[in-house]
Amino acid sequence: MSLSMYQASAPVFQRMLRNLKTLLQKAEAHAEARKFDAANLLNFRLYPDMFPLTRQVQIATDAAKGAMARLAGVDIPSWEDVETTLPELIARIDKALAYVESFRPEQIDGSEDRAITVQLRSGPLHFTGQEFLLSFALPNLFFHVTTAYNILRHNGVEIGKRDYLG
Amino acid sequence: MSLSMYQASAPVFQRMLRNLKTLLQKAEAHAEARKFDAANLLNFRLYPDMFPLTRQVQIATDAAKGAMARLAGVDIPSWEDVETTLPELIARIDKALAYVESFRPEQIDGSEDRAITVQLRSGPLHFTGQEFLLSFALPNLFFHVTTAYNILRHNGVEIGKRDYLG
Repeated sequence: MSLSMYQASAPVFQRMLRNLKTLLQKAEAHAEARKFDAANLLNFRLYPDMFPLTRQVQIATDAAKGAMARLAGVDIPSWEDVETTLPELIARIDKALAYVESFRPEQIDGSEDRAITVQLRSGPLHFTGQEFLLSFALPNLFFHVTTAYNILRHNGVEIGKRDYLG
Repeated sequence: MSLSMYQASAPVFQRMLRNLKTLLQKAEAHAEARKFDAANLLNFRLYPDMFPLTRQVQIATDAAKGAMARLAGVDIPSWEDVETTLPELIARIDKALAYVESFRPEQIDGSEDRAITVQLRSGPLHFTGQEFLLSFALPNLFFHVTTAYNILRHNGVEIGKRDYLG
């Protein structure tokens, strides 16, 4: 009895992407109720050299997309970062959800020892599939969903831990 | 070939706790260099009804401690929330690291189907060991480490994603 690589990746990504979608839907309702431009949220950063909400959502979806592709050993589809509204960001989450759902467990299972290289600006990082999932892909996904949550909370959107956990 | 419950929990908790420790050490150096009271960071909240940095660190350590105990089926040790300085919070992280390290893989492996109940203010949550780890313990730990990171970044402490990922 043990965890499979699929179980430790796809359903976790799906849950967090769905929760991120809920956060954005609540942000949209909040902006409508208060009659302010949702772009005020989308462009908000917790510090001048941090990414704004829009990028947090784009990177969260990229983290899920890249992790599935790398674990399965297929090319990572490239998605342009063109979203400028909450409905567009929600559509991007739906696209990421559909992409994660397109993988079958047998494409991911057995990827524990697959050699995975991630190119960062600072240079390449080399992982086994298991290291990649546990020390890069999951921490990264959770980071960007939590930071989106913190940006929205900081701006008074009425969301709670329960929305984050799902 | 597959992931074990131990591999998907203890080393992940250890890495994130060590990274959290690095974040706090950098916060300490920052407060000293700028000659301000580190309590200004410890009491900072991203929103009035969010937890301040101190609680984020306490909850992150509790998340790791509670997860290990629940997966192993042992009583969760109770730690008083008494820390009021960065060195005390760093000592609490060290205590949590030692606690996680005290478990042997065979105490955690095979806990996929263990029945785990978490008592929340809103009522009890019932999980299998695998659900608990993937949909509660890990998301919770990452949430509080990331929120600690965001509080420090928001306050100008010079930390980066690399410190978070380790």
